[in-house]
Amino acid sequence: MSEPADRPGLFDGVLAAGPVRDLVSDRAWLAGMLAFEAALAGAQAEVGLIPVEQAGVIAAACRAEDYDLAGLGQAATDVGNPAAPLVRALTAKVAEQDKEASGQVHRGATSQDVVDTAAMLVSKHALAALHEELAGCGELLAALAEEHRHTVQAGRTLLQQAIPVSFGLTAAGWLSTVDAVLARLGQLAGSRLAVQFGGATGTLASLGEHGPAVLAALADRLDLAVPVLPWHTDRTRIAELAGLLGEICGAVGKIATDVTLLAQTEVAEVIEQGPKGSGGSSTMPHKRNPVAAVAALAGARQAPGLVSTLLGAMAHEHQRAAGSWHAEWAPLTELLRATGSAVSWLRTSLSRLRVDPERMRANLAATGGLPLAERVVSALAGKVGRLAAHDAVTECCRRSVAENAGLAELLAADPVVGKHLDRDRIAELLDPAGYLGSSAIFVDRALAWHRDREGAS
Amino acid sequence: MSEPADRPGLFDGVLAAGPVRDLVSDRAWLAGMLAFEAALAGAQAEVGLIPVEQAGVIAAACRAEDYDLAGLGQAATDVGNPAAPLVRALTAKVAEQDKEASGQVHRGATSQDVVDTAAMLVSKHALAALHEELAGCGELLAALAEEHRHTVQAGRTLLQQAIPVSFGLTAAGWLSTVDAVLARLGQLAGSRLAVQFGGATGTLASLGEHGPAVLAALADRLDLAVPVLPWHTDRTRIAELAGLLGEICGAVGKIATDVTLLAQTEVAEVIEQGPKGSGGSSTMPHKRNPVAAVAALAGARQAPGLVSTLLGAMAHEHQRAAGSWHAEWAPLTELLRATGSAVSWLRTSLSRLRVDPERMRANLAATGGLPLAERVVSALAGKVGRLAAHDAVTECCRRSVAENAGLAELLAADPVVGKHLDRDRIAELLDPAGYLGSSAIFVDRALAWHRDREGAS
Amino acid sequence: MSEPADRPGLFDGVLAAGPVRDLVSDRAWLAGMLAFEAALAGAQAEVGLIPVEQAGVIAAACRAEDYDLAGLGQAATDVGNPAAPLVRALTAKVAEQDKEASGQVHRGATSQDVVDTAAMLVSKHALAALHEELAGCGELLAALAEEHRHTVQAGRTLLQQAIPVSFGLTAAGWLSTVDAVLARLGQLAGSRLAVQFGGATGTLASLGEHGPAVLAALADRLDLAVPVLPWHTDRTRIAELAGLLGEICGAVGKIATDVTLLAQTEVAEVIEQGPKGSGGSSTMPHKRNPVAAVAALAGARQAPGLVSTLLGAMAHEHQRAAGSWHAEWAPLTELLRATGSAVSWLRTSLSRLRVDPERMRANLAATGGLPLAERVVSALAGKVGRLAAHDAVTECCRRSVAENAGLAELLAADPVVGKHLDRDRIAELLDPAGYLGSSAIFVDRALAWHRDREGAS
Amino acid sequence: MSEPADRPGLFDGVLAAGPVRDLVSDRAWLAGMLAFEAALAGAQAEVGLIPVEQAGVIAAACRAEDYDLAGLGQAATDVGNPAAPLVRALTAKVAEQDKEASGQVHRGATSQDVVDTAAMLVSKHALAALHEELAGCGELLAALAEEHRHTVQAGRTLLQQAIPVSFGLTAAGWLSTVDAVLARLGQLAGSRLAVQFGGATGTLASLGEHGPAVLAALADRLDLAVPVLPWHTDRTRIAELAGLLGEICGAVGKIATDVTLLAQTEVAEVIEQGPKGSGGSSTMPHKRNPVAAVAALAGARQAPGLVSTLLGAMAHEHQRAAGSWHAEWAPLTELLRATGSAVSWLRTSLSRLRVDPERMRANLAATGGLPLAERVVSALAGKVGRLAAHDAVTECCRRSVAENAGLAELLAADPVVGKHLDRDRIAELLDPAGYLGSSAIFVDRALAWHRDREGAS
Repeated sequence: MSEPADRPGLFDGVLAAGPVRDLVSDRAWLAGMLAFEAALAGAQAEVGLIPVEQAGVIAAACRAEDYDLAGLGQAATDVGNPAAPLVRALTAKVAEQDKEASGQVHRGATSQDVVDTAAMLVSKHALAALHEELAGCGELLAALAEEHRHTVQAGRTLLQQAIPVSFGLTAAGWLSTVDAVLARLGQLAGSRLAVQFGGATGTLASLGEHGPAVLAALADRLDLAVPVLPWHTDRTRIAELAGLLGEICGAVGKIATDVTLLAQTEVAEVIEQGPKGSGGSSTMPHKRNPVAAVAALAGARQAPGLVSTLLGAMAHEHQRAAGSWHAEWAPLTELLRATGSAVSWLRTSLSRLRVDPERMRANLAATGGLPLAERVVSALAGKVGRLAAHDAVTECCRRSVAENAGLAELLAADPVVGKHLDRDRIAELLDPAGYLGSSAIFVDRALAWHRDREGAS
Repeated sequence: MSEPADRPGLFDGVLAAGPVRDLVSDRAWLAGMLAFEAALAGAQAEVGLIPVEQAGVIAAACRAEDYDLAGLGQAATDVGNPAAPLVRALTAKVAEQDKEASGQVHRGATSQDVVDTAAMLVSKHALAALHEELAGCGELLAALAEEHRHTVQAGRTLLQQAIPVSFGLTAAGWLSTVDAVLARLGQLAGSRLAVQFGGATGTLASLGEHGPAVLAALADRLDLAVPVLPWHTDRTRIAELAGLLGEICGAVGKIATDVTLLAQTEVAEVIEQGPKGSGGSSTMPHKRNPVAAVAALAGARQAPGLVSTLLGAMAHEHQRAAGSWHAEWAPLTELLRATGSAVSWLRTSLSRLRVDPERMRANLAATGGLPLAERVVSALAGKVGRLAAHDAVTECCRRSVAENAGLAELLAADPVVGKHLDRDRIAELLDPAGYLGSSAIFVDRALAWHRDREGAS
Repeated sequence: MSEPADRPGLFDGVLAAGPVRDLVSDRAWLAGMLAFEAALAGAQAEVGLIPVEQAGVIAAACRAEDYDLAGLGQAATDVGNPAAPLVRALTAKVAEQDKEASGQVHRGATSQDVVDTAAMLVSKHALAALHEELAGCGELLAALAEEHRHTVQAGRTLLQQAIPVSFGLTAAGWLSTVDAVLARLGQLAGSRLAVQFGGATGTLASLGEHGPAVLAALADRLDLAVPVLPWHTDRTRIAELAGLLGEICGAVGKIATDVTLLAQTEVAEVIEQGPKGSGGSSTMPHKRNPVAAVAALAGARQAPGLVSTLLGAMAHEHQRAAGSWHAEWAPLTELLRATGSAVSWLRTSLSRLRVDPERMRANLAATGGLPLAERVVSALAGKVGRLAAHDAVTECCRRSVAENAGLAELLAADPVVGKHLDRDRIAELLDPAGYLGSSAIFVDRALAWHRDREGAS
Repeated sequence: MSEPADRPGLFDGVLAAGPVRDLVSDRAWLAGMLAFEAALAGAQAEVGLIPVEQAGVIAAACRAEDYDLAGLGQAATDVGNPAAPLVRALTAKVAEQDKEASGQVHRGATSQDVVDTAAMLVSKHALAALHEELAGCGELLAALAEEHRHTVQAGRTLLQQAIPVSFGLTAAGWLSTVDAVLARLGQLAGSRLAVQFGGATGTLASLGEHGPAVLAALADRLDLAVPVLPWHTDRTRIAELAGLLGEICGAVGKIATDVTLLAQTEVAEVIEQGPKGSGGSSTMPHKRNPVAAVAALAGARQAPGLVSTLLGAMAHEHQRAAGSWHAEWAPLTELLRATGSAVSWLRTSLSRLRVDPERMRANLAATGGLPLAERVVSALAGKVGRLAAHDAVTECCRRSVAENAGLAELLAADPVVGKHLDRDRIAELLDPAGYLGSSAIFVDRALAWHRDREGAS
């Protein structure tokens, strides 16, 4: 699509980042509508309903840059959709070249055929871009998982430190989330984007017997699926698309939230190292606003409400709806754009991410081994019984917090613990690096799954 | 606001009707931000913090048409909001006139002060326009209620005909819905639109002791309320605004739904008589698409999801949020715009409404008096007991449906009914006009309430 | 699941119809949690971590009917989830039989493992029931499509009559909607319901090297998928499930809306013929409330908001979330229940549906052929040119409406039309049965697709 | 209401805390429905339509504990609402005492009158409890604001430390949020909870001229407002209620989020000191799960979706809706319950809150004065010009971070800074306690506003 995109809005720098913005612009919708008309003429020529030359004339008139977008928008007021005035304008343009051909424009189609097919084309291009951006995130995450397979980090539950993980596992978790949405994206894009063509009430009545043949040829030309029948009021395609976009935004939100939390001044395990001027402050050089993650969150938070709007508009009455159809245009566009922005910002955030393994270890050390106390209990249980082990260790933990004293010392000094575990063994048990369980295995599994999918897609 | 508005988009003719569109445009947001900066300089001059002349130079530089909106949007990418680049541009513009004055631009303020105050100004103007449009709807509805106080219409429950109403009562019900949202709108607009001014963390630290005085002067200049304290992360104002807009859209949705249902080909009690080309079809002159009501529905259906987005973004962290704030801009703007469009389309629909009292009577007659059978039971009950009355009438009703025979005849011929009620009395009992209960009184009450409120506002 | 289900609530007769209600009851959740504990013990025995006998003792104690559900709910207050008190109760019960075994209860697991796995089991059972109910709807719809392949009906757009369809096509459209959601349901149920097992932070640390083996054995025993890694804070599974349920409800809403519209007193093309006492009224025997469709709508309308709640709760922090996880329980349960109710009511509605082909034909005839005027234009265009044909027919249509006169007569009497088309041809052109385009073909395609899928599932 | 409440569910301990749960139980709905019937009989007696004795017999039969709730729920299936079987059961019960009186039960009313009025009564009681709980939160917050007026704390923006605030200001911000929702709650509860009474189509036809008088007497007896006319399909009352509850949950969410963030292991400025067993862990005594704040968040997050469901169901058709009405019962109940739980948990969290002023000061000190650099610039600007001041200080800040060196030393050693500001002055400028701006004033304003409102309510 080489057409000039709509001019960026005041908030677009923050809320409409990345390639999707242009792919869902009004200009892109217009291009999609014209692509439908050109392909329809072509399909009818293919089937023998109209001369190939006429189809050629029509196709030649279907260049988006030749149309006055704002004028079409204005003219849509009277009939309630922009396809009708576009067809009028296209017919006039064709008539300038070939009077006869102008009579074949939009033949057999209804306005909703045009707009719905445009919606599918716009979505298709946007999904391709989303795939690319998400795959980019996946690559960055796979590298992080790989690199930090053994970087110890505090596991955190309810925002409290718990037993340790590796930062590689954290990244692998993020990665598997991204891979999950990529898998679903691939599934949907490959099967559910179908052409719309049914005429006024979905019967293709004015085409007589030729309806199905034209439908098939049209789908083929636009590289869209052929529906079983026109889906004017079956909006499950839109619903699935919405659900997917909501899921993507949820995935972005999870990762971006973690980034902002890890980047807190008091945690500081990661920072976003952006270009000069982004996220920093000259007088507050300690301040590293994770601007990209924050903007990703802003985009991601648009989704649940927009998804609900699209789901709530599914009850299209009879053969074509009274309002629910029109109600889809804005939220679908906005949902694609917001998802695009969220994903692009996430990619930016991840590409800027600087990880501080030292700080990770220090944060974990700040609780002096307490998260590992359960491990000491287990080691001791075999010797003195679970209950006695538990009581002894718990008392040491309690004192460690109350007296702000080192847990290792207290354990070594404890009559029960000290009798069965020497200082070295205690130190070993309290070493987080030794208590990562299946972290490395899970990292490997996530990486293997990621690579399998990459090859497949 | 005399600035040129943003160009209409492809769907704006349908989804962004009426005056609100321009009032919430990017240009309007920019104007709001600059109004903040001008008023802030003025307020500081008033309090004696800066020379009056400098404030004048700053104010003179605050004309929205002098700024490159798209450029600001682009520049917002780095820092995450459009206020920062605007302040830079404003400072440069002031510096061209007065180097000293440029040091006073935006003094003590943070970006969120600028954007939040702009949000309040934009909302204020939009609410004023919404009030005007809703009041216009109210006038049209009051006239309908007045005129059709005695026009008999089928009452309908679960889309089935039930006992009669007057169309005046139907209109009065719509009117009281509109008046309810107008009342709430007035309440909110009069109390909850407050200036935002707190500096980086809401302490106004850089103004020393002068914070509250500047805050008050600033609010006064912008005709906004003075908050108890900066509300950077108290988003109850936004939530109430969202709730109000959702309520307005719900009200529009109710009325517009009824219009589309009454305009159905098979019901045809009202039509939208629009200008040539709207809603009609040259080859299908029987078809009267209620385009305005349909577009009103399309707008109204945007609201629930957008309201949920704004409510879902209320958990702003600490002193200023990491994402939730940015997440408000798009849905707030879109919610105002969609509500504006919905309300304007409703006004258009109501102004086009042609009521067909004859058809109303005919539709009611088509069920041959069945909806009034309960009235015959009541009349008969005093004479033969409730049970016997019920049984006799029910049997007549059953036969009326089964045999497609007139209920009046069957009742007259029934031994029990016919003995106590003569044909005239039966006809009287089956006359819907005589069974409207308090319809006229309720119409009067709705009109009285409406007029009281009109006087008050 | 033979446990007694929760007692029905006051609104359950309307809002919680069908088999899903019991499958998502608190009792079912409890059973799911206990199934996890039993399978976990079994899996650990299988892997050799604990003696088979101990696993047997634990499994024997995992019968839901032995636990005090309300008491567990109350005890959940302190720790914030019902798994912890359940584990305590289970441990005590096991200890009564075997002290040693009691030390193996819940080994290596965290509360979220229990509750998330229960969520997957509950969802699995509910999806199976949903599949069954939807397949039942599909059968009924396929029969309707088959039977009414040639039943002429008015096509309706924006609630206005347009060119005709067959009621078979209407039913085929509904069918393809149902088949679309069935396909998606099968996809999801077959791949995305995975066991949860990760321990405190997803590392399975306390199991040493045995984590993955236990994970696999556990999944196998519960017939759930093995995840790549623990998905404590990767909620894409929940999101996809939510999206699916929202889509199903949207599909139900579309069909149920059409039923209520077609059942309107003034349209009356279908009625719901329920058992005595449902939807009727003794004194208003004409009134046929489509109670089942209405209740289906009530259920379906719960979905968009609940889906948005689940999508909005996806940003689970770090290794386990602070609130977002707990926020899922109620909406997930409610969404499953509401979807179950909506689908069951739809099935009931369709099973009660009585179609009135005569009334369909009559409604179409009421507009006297106007919807078919476009066909006359096409037939005439070949002879006098499109423009002349259009003008002549349009004028006849205009007069037909204005003078309430028959279109056929007017066309025959028109100098241009009458000259080229005789009365028989005109009658033929205005016969809706001859203008159904590809309706029958589309019906066949929908039926073929339906039967293919049936065989596959 | 002395009736036994529904038994607690499995998740109720977490998701349905506080008094609201019982006030919105099925039992409470039933009590509300019966209160309507009793008051209706009383009102009709008052107006002279039925004998006082009969009204007494009816009222005596309106005790919720005498009815089989589950049976009513089951019986609701046929007609689509629980009011119809309840009226049947009530009529039978009255008939046992007084045959005549039984004919007067529910006179002139329709099922929706019963259920809507019950909804208003249930809401009224729930709002009263919410008011009480919120006022309790307000009291705790006022005490915190008062006590910590001068406790220095890091202000945080985008989760990064910025210039300081007082914790009193933080608490005052929370307080003003609570007071804002209390104000709105008072407004709504005082004006918008109205009785419903209109008969089948809102005309009160069967009451002849007496409709308005009975309506007024009924409202009076139930202490509800008198509507202008029956509001069967004007759902603005429900919408406003939903909006209010969404706002309350948003307010809770903001405060609870802050609590969980401040309670993070690495921040630790507050802890929730609950009773033994809540939030702690015997082996991890450092872990202080802020269970109450987490559960508050879980409740609060239910709201946006449920609000959108209620707003999305506002388009009630004609005189009574086909599905939208039934769609309100579950989300309204759940929204009240979730809000009740969220507010109660917030109150619990605040009552458990232990504040650590020392840690607050330490966290702020950890960034070595950097947040206050802007203050040094201001002080220096008067002497060397803004630009030179900015450059010198910025360089010191940069080195402070890069070299991990104390800012005070670097400033003192800087040739420009050191020349104009001595060590004492630098220390003074870097003391956060001296840079709190209007914090104390804002605290006082918030407290004053709070006390004014307390007196008023």
